[in-house]
Amino acid sequence: MIKVGIVGATGYTGVELLRLLANHAEVQVELITSRSHKGTLVTELFPSLRGFYDLVFSEPDNKALAQCDLVFFATPNGTAMKRVPELLAKGVKIIDLAADFRITSQATWEKWYGMEHACPELLTSAVYGLPELNREKIKQAQLIANPGCYPTATILGLMPLIKHNVIEPSGLIADCKSAASGAGRGANVAGLMAECGESFKAYGVSGHRHLPEIQQILSMIAGEPREITFVPHLIPMIRGIHATLYGQLTTDIDLQKLYQEAYIDEPFIDVLPENSHPETRSVKGVNQCRIAIHQPQNSKRVVVLSVIDNLVKGAAGQAIQNMNICCGLTETMGLDQVALMP
Amino acid sequence: MIKVGIVGATGYTGVELLRLLANHAEVQVELITSRSHKGTLVTELFPSLRGFYDLVFSEPDNKALAQCDLVFFATPNGTAMKRVPELLAKGVKIIDLAADFRITSQATWEKWYGMEHACPELLTSAVYGLPELNREKIKQAQLIANPGCYPTATILGLMPLIKHNVIEPSGLIADCKSAASGAGRGANVAGLMAECGESFKAYGVSGHRHLPEIQQILSMIAGEPREITFVPHLIPMIRGIHATLYGQLTTDIDLQKLYQEAYIDEPFIDVLPENSHPETRSVKGVNQCRIAIHQPQNSKRVVVLSVIDNLVKGAAGQAIQNMNICCGLTETMGLDQVALMP
Amino acid sequence: MIKVGIVGATGYTGVELLRLLANHAEVQVELITSRSHKGTLVTELFPSLRGFYDLVFSEPDNKALAQCDLVFFATPNGTAMKRVPELLAKGVKIIDLAADFRITSQATWEKWYGMEHACPELLTSAVYGLPELNREKIKQAQLIANPGCYPTATILGLMPLIKHNVIEPSGLIADCKSAASGAGRGANVAGLMAECGESFKAYGVSGHRHLPEIQQILSMIAGEPREITFVPHLIPMIRGIHATLYGQLTTDIDLQKLYQEAYIDEPFIDVLPENSHPETRSVKGVNQCRIAIHQPQNSKRVVVLSVIDNLVKGAAGQAIQNMNICCGLTETMGLDQVALMP
Amino acid sequence: MIKVGIVGATGYTGVELLRLLANHAEVQVELITSRSHKGTLVTELFPSLRGFYDLVFSEPDNKALAQCDLVFFATPNGTAMKRVPELLAKGVKIIDLAADFRITSQATWEKWYGMEHACPELLTSAVYGLPELNREKIKQAQLIANPGCYPTATILGLMPLIKHNVIEPSGLIADCKSAASGAGRGANVAGLMAECGESFKAYGVSGHRHLPEIQQILSMIAGEPREITFVPHLIPMIRGIHATLYGQLTTDIDLQKLYQEAYIDEPFIDVLPENSHPETRSVKGVNQCRIAIHQPQNSKRVVVLSVIDNLVKGAAGQAIQNMNICCGLTETMGLDQVALMP
Repeated sequence: MIKVGIVGATGYTGVELLRLLANHAEVQVELITSRSHKGTLVTELFPSLRGFYDLVFSEPDNKALAQCDLVFFATPNGTAMKRVPELLAKGVKIIDLAADFRITSQATWEKWYGMEHACPELLTSAVYGLPELNREKIKQAQLIANPGCYPTATILGLMPLIKHNVIEPSGLIADCKSAASGAGRGANVAGLMAECGESFKAYGVSGHRHLPEIQQILSMIAGEPREITFVPHLIPMIRGIHATLYGQLTTDIDLQKLYQEAYIDEPFIDVLPENSHPETRSVKGVNQCRIAIHQPQNSKRVVVLSVIDNLVKGAAGQAIQNMNICCGLTETMGLDQVALMP
Repeated sequence: MIKVGIVGATGYTGVELLRLLANHAEVQVELITSRSHKGTLVTELFPSLRGFYDLVFSEPDNKALAQCDLVFFATPNGTAMKRVPELLAKGVKIIDLAADFRITSQATWEKWYGMEHACPELLTSAVYGLPELNREKIKQAQLIANPGCYPTATILGLMPLIKHNVIEPSGLIADCKSAASGAGRGANVAGLMAECGESFKAYGVSGHRHLPEIQQILSMIAGEPREITFVPHLIPMIRGIHATLYGQLTTDIDLQKLYQEAYIDEPFIDVLPENSHPETRSVKGVNQCRIAIHQPQNSKRVVVLSVIDNLVKGAAGQAIQNMNICCGLTETMGLDQVALMP
Repeated sequence: MIKVGIVGATGYTGVELLRLLANHAEVQVELITSRSHKGTLVTELFPSLRGFYDLVFSEPDNKALAQCDLVFFATPNGTAMKRVPELLAKGVKIIDLAADFRITSQATWEKWYGMEHACPELLTSAVYGLPELNREKIKQAQLIANPGCYPTATILGLMPLIKHNVIEPSGLIADCKSAASGAGRGANVAGLMAECGESFKAYGVSGHRHLPEIQQILSMIAGEPREITFVPHLIPMIRGIHATLYGQLTTDIDLQKLYQEAYIDEPFIDVLPENSHPETRSVKGVNQCRIAIHQPQNSKRVVVLSVIDNLVKGAAGQAIQNMNICCGLTETMGLDQVALMP
Repeated sequence: MIKVGIVGATGYTGVELLRLLANHAEVQVELITSRSHKGTLVTELFPSLRGFYDLVFSEPDNKALAQCDLVFFATPNGTAMKRVPELLAKGVKIIDLAADFRITSQATWEKWYGMEHACPELLTSAVYGLPELNREKIKQAQLIANPGCYPTATILGLMPLIKHNVIEPSGLIADCKSAASGAGRGANVAGLMAECGESFKAYGVSGHRHLPEIQQILSMIAGEPREITFVPHLIPMIRGIHATLYGQLTTDIDLQKLYQEAYIDEPFIDVLPENSHPETRSVKGVNQCRIAIHQPQNSKRVVVLSVIDNLVKGAAGQAIQNMNICCGLTETMGLDQVALMP
């Protein structure tokens, strides 16, 4: 059994790790931490876990965390980086669900996240944990930067086009829509049901932190700089991301075949039949990305529809997938649920 | 034109006052206050008001408020009582949308609201602003305690039964359900869409602050003490209260006729035809209470269904109705909208 | 492996059976039927099942169904009764998720369901599939009537009080609230999001089909006739039932202890700590009933709060629990998921 | 008083006309028709109208309709065209809220709407009822084609860019999102709350009927053919459309100023301050279009955000605006409500 710890287990990605790990055959959650809820039973905060856990939140402490084989950081940005160097030195594997290690350029990270990085020397050695892109590196990784939710949906949707160089470099657009849980479990007026319910809006059009992450990975895939226009929106619901991706083809090609072949061996990518429209609910609660490809009016315009559950393939599920890979377990272990429909 | 001020205009009842007063023919909103948003244009916070107001939030100040004919307090409990005595002395009419003056007994108020009352001498002179019960007193009132949302739906639903003494004194139940805006616009985890969306729960079963208010008014109507079991629940939506009220008849009586006659002259009470089930959306945005009466299986059991919009007949709309009455205006002025359906 | 068939697998209870059985270790779904979707891949209708099933809907046919060890009927009321006698004769076990075999009195059934019963001789031999009440009978049963959703939440909430005879026989109230999926997957105006979203209402106050079912079982438990006032309401959400149950105690008793002892061995009943308020989301997607008991204002009034997922413990999950019991499998097999939160 | 009739008043645009006309000072609704609800009181179907109307639905009949000054057709596509020629001949003004007269090319109309047009000779004389584009023509019009909801949001968002020729002709994208009421009030599985709630999806990517309408009007404005990629999506809520519009600037220009000047005299277009993100709820229930303009990362890329209420500025409100114009009334009459927030 692999012993894992979860730092910051009171947020949505933390409790989602607990949900998914509850029935994982090879993992034992040893330790969950929370400064604010120290001493509280996890089941008091999350009654949905009654019967599965009798853990109590403890103060985060590196000595205790070092007893784990692997530690998940489900903390706000800027928290993991303060503990990671010491834990790495003690041989613990780390998967950070926040953004501390997603951006390789220190300057870019500090610009977008508005703080100094505590261990910039790790930025280039951390592995970006998108298994469909980096599986071999993840196998060897000790420090994994779990991708952002928008980047996961966007990159998986565009990767085959860019890898095969069949799309114009400029003019890419990611019109993305996310459910409210993406904003986290912190108290705030904008997230109240009476504020974001029965309404829809864009936000962060002038620049969102996931933009440099998306551009970095698309550039890496392309082998040269790539820019994209990224517009996030807020959907009045709880879980799900829908990315609507626009590009311009440079060539005639059977896109359906391209995608099916690109993802044929991927357990968590599902290329839908032609003319499909994936619904976010078709991945509710599960570690899947469902993708459909369209060429409306048979033009050179390509429209890719890509859906994930922001808390699963966009966060905790992908983190467990990464854990399975880097710990030598079967990649799909503990991730075989069926989406909750309706 | 009547000059009004609104203290605490950044919450839901405050902005609802602004919405309803925007087209009121005899009222001019002169002044809106907010400590936290001093200097901010109201339309910056609430773009829905663009084109209707160019007011800026100011620091609350009694001197400025005293220039108004009438001041609405749309503040948290315990705020109005600190300013009301001075404003009354200056001849300003006051309508408090919070609970400071709803309970006549100081001891009861202090027990349920957990603080000392700043002007207990006003508790018995304040008029409980339920026009269907107290219209004549409201006409003369200088200080009006606007009723709570649950009490409004519950009392209007039970009043004919109690007034005509056709129901057993014991065993009354108010199983009430409220939308999320009832909890106000303050930042809190429990009100997040990702917390209260797609879920339903009871709360405060051991005792909710609206219980003593309901019991006080029902007792006043009955002329002797009345108790009730009151269980509030939270509905995953934005606006609306549904009260399901249970009692036991003491006599054979035509309930439909009783209610229709009781409310025949009331502009804002709508007794539905027999065998109806009022939907909260039928009063969305309007100052109406719709009521249906049932005797399931023709037993002595009576079930009353009563719906209001918690922010309108349950708060701001009723406050304007009270303002109209106490200022000598037509009672329905500014309150003639049609509910938003769908 | 137990071979099962599902008749009427295009509705919500049918697809929920498929979701829950996808990972059941001892069951193979052999056959799914649908008249209207004959020839369609189940994954075309329900993309959430892609990767788990490659079944095609077939025309219902007793010969084919007779090849199964057990057949679930997830059909409208009045459908199962036409096929059950022949299938029973061929030795197939039957679990009917509809109401055909829930009422033992033919006259009562025909009155409430408005049709003639096709095999009234089976009404008294069918076993009411509430394991917490009838586990021993279910073990031997060949024909199981899976309980209704409202009756499940209500009966589990009241059973300890009635069994121990600590509650007044009269005056029982079940104020129940159900999500929209309870109305099924048939096209209808009232179920449209634009109709039932952002609204709340009671319905069927004059009499709902689950009333005679609840009264029959409560009477059975009491050993004498019991009546109840049952008022169902519609919540603007997808899954979940909340029953708020009211009764009058006849004695002083530690209710918390009574319930904990009553359900101590039940794998799917969770009695919450004192002063709890169960949320429906705490059972979203899982075969749990969570219960809290209150005595507000320390009176003789008892208020029980009982929540289930209407499609799981209220339908498909309970059906699988019954299948496990009557087929000699571990009762909890395939039912060990954690609720989806948030 | 202008006498109006509404054909097909049982759908969402019909009942929205009734809501908005209830308080219109110069209009009397004389006649509402519905084949399926002939003889039913409108308040029985829509209790929100109780107290405002005592009309009964009648069978549609041209003789009765001809008594009206103006008739609204709030009917499915293909209905109005069968009655319009006769009513025009009798001097009645017509506003069709469906699509029968929106497309000037008969061939295009018949291709997209899949039926033969009953009066193609009227296609070119009908006036496209977008007041911000066609006000002078509307003043003289007898037959007005009320625009589609998506086209309204899209065209108003793009018009200044195209009129001033500051945007590249190719590469336009309209990524649009609509609430569920846009699909109408007909019974259908896809519109059930349990189907479209808590989910998000694109639809009609290969071609939606509003595409030729948008392209026709954009081409008219440009004075030469314009194409656009149009992708509609379904939001899990009741009212509102959000159009996110993408183009490429051909020149350096102050877009904020361009839009503010373009719409400075328009009572129903609100250009928000720089860096704004309009929420659909800011126009809930009102005849407003709120627009914000962005140039993310200061590139040549322009992103326009445009929101309307699909049932008001996208349907019934715009129809009343058109009525006011063509009947010589003040354009804003009856359309001065404040949006319902929250």
